[in-house]
Amino acid sequence: MTLERAESRRVITGFSNPTVKALRALREKKHRKASGKFLAEGLRLLTDARECGHVPEVLVLSTSRDPHPLLAELEKSVEAAGGEVIETSPDILSKITGKDNAQAVAGVFAEFDTSLDALDRNVADIWLVAQALRDPGNLGTMLRTGDAIGAGGLILIDDCADPFSVEAVRASMGAVFTQKIAQARWEEFESWLRSGDGQLVAASLRDAQPYRGAPYAAPCFVMVGNESRGLPEDYEMACDLRVTMPMKGRADSLNAAVAAAVLGYEVLASLEG
Amino acid sequence: MTLERAESRRVITGFSNPTVKALRALREKKHRKASGKFLAEGLRLLTDARECGHVPEVLVLSTSRDPHPLLAELEKSVEAAGGEVIETSPDILSKITGKDNAQAVAGVFAEFDTSLDALDRNVADIWLVAQALRDPGNLGTMLRTGDAIGAGGLILIDDCADPFSVEAVRASMGAVFTQKIAQARWEEFESWLRSGDGQLVAASLRDAQPYRGAPYAAPCFVMVGNESRGLPEDYEMACDLRVTMPMKGRADSLNAAVAAAVLGYEVLASLEG
Repeated sequence: MTLERAESRRVITGFSNPTVKALRALREKKHRKASGKFLAEGLRLLTDARECGHVPEVLVLSTSRDPHPLLAELEKSVEAAGGEVIETSPDILSKITGKDNAQAVAGVFAEFDTSLDALDRNVADIWLVAQALRDPGNLGTMLRTGDAIGAGGLILIDDCADPFSVEAVRASMGAVFTQKIAQARWEEFESWLRSGDGQLVAASLRDAQPYRGAPYAAPCFVMVGNESRGLPEDYEMACDLRVTMPMKGRADSLNAAVAAAVLGYEVLASLEG
Repeated sequence: MTLERAESRRVITGFSNPTVKALRALREKKHRKASGKFLAEGLRLLTDARECGHVPEVLVLSTSRDPHPLLAELEKSVEAAGGEVIETSPDILSKITGKDNAQAVAGVFAEFDTSLDALDRNVADIWLVAQALRDPGNLGTMLRTGDAIGAGGLILIDDCADPFSVEAVRASMGAVFTQKIAQARWEEFESWLRSGDGQLVAASLRDAQPYRGAPYAAPCFVMVGNESRGLPEDYEMACDLRVTMPMKGRADSLNAAVAAAVLGYEVLASLEG
């Protein structure tokens, strides 16, 4: 039975195969947007995805994979959902994901709804907000941190990196599937935020109070700005609370994903305390 | 006077110029180790370096740079120290640093002493320790965080990424020049640590207490492990204190640089509190 299924499967051996090209193209934003699909790799990440209800439309297996019960589960889910399972060489899988030492498995997923309307702010006490964040690694790291602090999701303001890029998905360590993701212009976000409960907080040097012991309130929206420029002044001034972290050295700022995490954990402790 | 100086300067116009090749080669670890030099870029970063007593041996200026008083200061320092100032096109500068939209200036610096003996543990209450950290961006981010929390420096245990790689230097935002850096095998580090005062702390799931309110003590050495594997069990068990951060979601760990920052800020607050 297993053998039969394996034999009926498509095995791709050529680098120039059109499916390989189509999968590789998902590393580029324009192809992701055109198709509404994105790539994720790794057994653990794909298992997280499955357990959160995201089954890949296409599952790509390395011919050199070791058997694993979770992999078998994954194949079963994909087949049950009418998806396709493909086998290919480790080299071709590396070429698809753009990573040396490719993982044994990758999947193609449908992108999610990323409108603010898809968010229910009351499901979580904390939300992370990124403004014009350009580094997909930072964005993925924020998703991962959001998962850890029990945030509801990540709201991307203005022109951020693509949360569905391979780098962001990889850095999120699966949190791209557990965290809600919304994208909006600042004006849209502000009007959505003010249409309900919500405290907007940012790390700032302007009229700010120490981040420890500040009066955080749920649902708390923790916002960080662009890696080089930080937040625009009017965005900071629109915050309900501006807080400052100690800066003991020469630097006057932290890495954006680090700032979100330090502040996020403080908010968590404060709301739980 | 300024014109005369500019005219006497070497201007490089060809991509295949041997100096360009030598500078580009510094992006590779083996060439950095062979020459004992590394590259840093950007006016702000080079100014931080100068103010911390690190003057580049070679200063490379883009011909399309705008004049800036800090740039003039930098040129003066390099010339006073007997270094060389070179001008080249933005394209060639991009090729040297491997970054699109190159900054207007880059410098070649001598690598520092990175032995444990070069550290005086009593100059700071906090030290960061990274074990087998493979991502140069994480390593640079830890240096940046170290600067922010007033750490003395970063100790690299076992096989870490190179702190003098272009990516690490860039992510450090200048902290590579303000933080001490040491590299050692675990056994060396452990014996050095135990030869004086020092509390070794790690985020861990083994026999750990909540990270908030844990009894931190200076000098506190905050250690994080490899991105995929975490810390080896015996390293964790050698710690004086194992602490745990809340993990509310599916993930059971944070990004290494994020974990160091959340824990580092907690230690700072505790020691200052």
